[in-house]
Amino acid sequence: MIEAIRPMQRTPEPTVDAVGDWCGLVHQVRRLSARTFLKLWLPRGLVQIVCAEAPEGVRAGATVRVRGRVVAATLRDATLYWRSLEIAATEVEIVASPAPEGMPFDLTRPELVATPQTRLDHRPASLRHPRIRAAFTIQAALVRAFRAHLDGLGFTEIRSPKLGSEGAEGGADVFDLDYFGRRAVLAQSPQFYKEMCTGVFGRVYEVGPVFRAEPHATRRHLNEYTSLDVELGPIGSFTEVMSLQVGLLAAMMQQLEQDCSHELALLEIELPEVHTIPALRFAEAKKITGGTGHDLAPAEEAALGRWAQSEHGSQWLYVTHYPTAKRPFYAMDTPGEPSVTDSFDLLFRGTEITTGGQRIHDPGELEAKIRSRGMDPAGFAFFLQAHRCGLPPHGGFGLGLERMTALLCGIDNVRDATLFPRDAHRLTP
Amino acid sequence: MIEAIRPMQRTPEPTVDAVGDWCGLVHQVRRLSARTFLKLWLPRGLVQIVCAEAPEGVRAGATVRVRGRVVAATLRDATLYWRSLEIAATEVEIVASPAPEGMPFDLTRPELVATPQTRLDHRPASLRHPRIRAAFTIQAALVRAFRAHLDGLGFTEIRSPKLGSEGAEGGADVFDLDYFGRRAVLAQSPQFYKEMCTGVFGRVYEVGPVFRAEPHATRRHLNEYTSLDVELGPIGSFTEVMSLQVGLLAAMMQQLEQDCSHELALLEIELPEVHTIPALRFAEAKKITGGTGHDLAPAEEAALGRWAQSEHGSQWLYVTHYPTAKRPFYAMDTPGEPSVTDSFDLLFRGTEITTGGQRIHDPGELEAKIRSRGMDPAGFAFFLQAHRCGLPPHGGFGLGLERMTALLCGIDNVRDATLFPRDAHRLTP
Repeated sequence: MIEAIRPMQRTPEPTVDAVGDWCGLVHQVRRLSARTFLKLWLPRGLVQIVCAEAPEGVRAGATVRVRGRVVAATLRDATLYWRSLEIAATEVEIVASPAPEGMPFDLTRPELVATPQTRLDHRPASLRHPRIRAAFTIQAALVRAFRAHLDGLGFTEIRSPKLGSEGAEGGADVFDLDYFGRRAVLAQSPQFYKEMCTGVFGRVYEVGPVFRAEPHATRRHLNEYTSLDVELGPIGSFTEVMSLQVGLLAAMMQQLEQDCSHELALLEIELPEVHTIPALRFAEAKKITGGTGHDLAPAEEAALGRWAQSEHGSQWLYVTHYPTAKRPFYAMDTPGEPSVTDSFDLLFRGTEITTGGQRIHDPGELEAKIRSRGMDPAGFAFFLQAHRCGLPPHGGFGLGLERMTALLCGIDNVRDATLFPRDAHRLTP
Repeated sequence: MIEAIRPMQRTPEPTVDAVGDWCGLVHQVRRLSARTFLKLWLPRGLVQIVCAEAPEGVRAGATVRVRGRVVAATLRDATLYWRSLEIAATEVEIVASPAPEGMPFDLTRPELVATPQTRLDHRPASLRHPRIRAAFTIQAALVRAFRAHLDGLGFTEIRSPKLGSEGAEGGADVFDLDYFGRRAVLAQSPQFYKEMCTGVFGRVYEVGPVFRAEPHATRRHLNEYTSLDVELGPIGSFTEVMSLQVGLLAAMMQQLEQDCSHELALLEIELPEVHTIPALRFAEAKKITGGTGHDLAPAEEAALGRWAQSEHGSQWLYVTHYPTAKRPFYAMDTPGEPSVTDSFDLLFRGTEITTGGQRIHDPGELEAKIRSRGMDPAGFAFFLQAHRCGLPPHGGFGLGLERMTALLCGIDNVRDATLFPRDAHRLTP
């Protein structure tokens, strides 16, 4: 019995007067005296179904096939993706059913009422809440826009290994495992690989998981998160990297406005403007916060966020020229100012979402820097090999996807901006 | 000192009569008596520079800035991305230099002359060979096309965790590690997560790393590879999943033709046609190969590839209805035929690149299947939870990116279709 498989046809989305079949998961059932209203999940979102009577067993979590005609309507329910139409069904057939006990919580309330712990323990259910789901539609659009903008600028997408023999950032916060009798570590960052690839493709990006074995549990940290990584060469200065990012963020916001109007309205998100972004030296930032030390504490970031808003009307702020002592060995010192680096952090709404800067490209300079930090160049053999083959002057940045999603969507805890988050206490679901 | 960072402007690509600056990595230097020819890497590929004299230290691996005018030319060298123009430089300035010892091998030969081992040991250098680099430009385009096609069909991109508490496929071939005092495993597949997400988004895909702790070293296996994963519901039959894939593969080939004409020509790749794909039941396939057992050996796959080519003129072949005994517990049995499953493999040029099928969506049926295999449902708590909340009838597939790249580009060993491959003996670079 041989048959030929043909390409799948595009499923038409509901438009007024269309007659046909629609199949989807039931989100809600409301039975009134004369009619029953269903909310049905189609790929883009919820659509309302009206029918004279629905079969007995239809309930949330069932999959149904409805046959009917699309009619114009004016619907106020903000969870509906289609609010100017509904499907008048002549037939509703149950295709699959959930278990009899039903959902662990009521998904039809405007906000999910559940403790953070319960919400995450029952992720397969909580993700079905329209407001929670919407944040991930936005997250997917953010990544799509990130890639589209960079593709347009001649960037090449790379995939670096997550299993390696040493960490880019070094230190103790690395997961290690037995790899056929040897020690392997999980990548904390694609840093070395993206730098090496500037010698191959010039401009590269990667979207992938990174792993940090930090035991602390804060609202802004995960043990596995998605890093949007960019690296490009040749550059004339680290400010070019920031310029690239400003254009990129503007494009990402524009794309959200275009693709996610439903989700933005549902979550009542006002997108931040991105025209130019103010920049401040680290030393100047410290004068504003009144703080000390070589890093910015979360409270200092928040203060700087308020400062950028009041002084520049910007939700974004670059802090540049971080102290050399606090930057990794591959960071380039500022010419003539060896105590600071040609580096930056980007704050969004008072929280750091990006670290970046120019990197050392000269092989001799890199080796000297490794030695000056008391490290052994042999531990960075292949990274140095790339430099010896010649790398263009280059720089880049990493942007934490979940943290950016949380800040954008007004989500307080980064775990809730992650489909299936991992922290020191959570390995499931 | 505060400044505002503006969005980066698009760098113009060379067009005839344009006058300007171009900056890039030098690939090759040829000094003739009167003129010097350089090949320079720009983001899209190589361009030829002609100048009266180049500075003394210009060599492969250096970064230079050239000033000049673009002139029309007819160039035969297939490694050049721009073959109908060159840049007549009036000025060439060295911006960065490689180490004095030069490249570990000659990157200007038509083919890289090096053992497979050396090629991979010196990956930062070997990737710069135009033919090797081209395969990764094609790989990036494959993934871009994969996502674009699915985005157009209303799919949502998801990111599932790579750290978990149990493996989707079970068995011994899993990497494990200490996770804050507990055992964690690296994901062998996003199977459970993508299935759960059909209850949230209906149609989902993921592009991400998967990890297999298989100690064997073959030309077609890696210990870390990229899986292009798709899952969708509601579906009426597993053949809908194959239909989706046929349309997807056709779109991917079309996109390659459009975006990668230079790379396809350089590697002399003739893209396979994808209109309809023939399908054959596993039992029928076994009659053709004359083999026994519940699986297809590589030699049998090769024989079936030749059969599909000679009987159907197709480089693709679906083998369907695999024995239940060889499919995972979540595979759906064929209605009325419990010894086989509604599943498929896709062979491309005689090698399996995809496994897929319909999955069990009914919570009671799944739990019974788990028990019937002697496993404990408690070990699949959150997967069963998703089913109990109601999943649509669903199915999907996984496609190995590196293997597909290798088959498409005529690369013999899948390691060479991976930027930085990982096998039992290789953790660097």
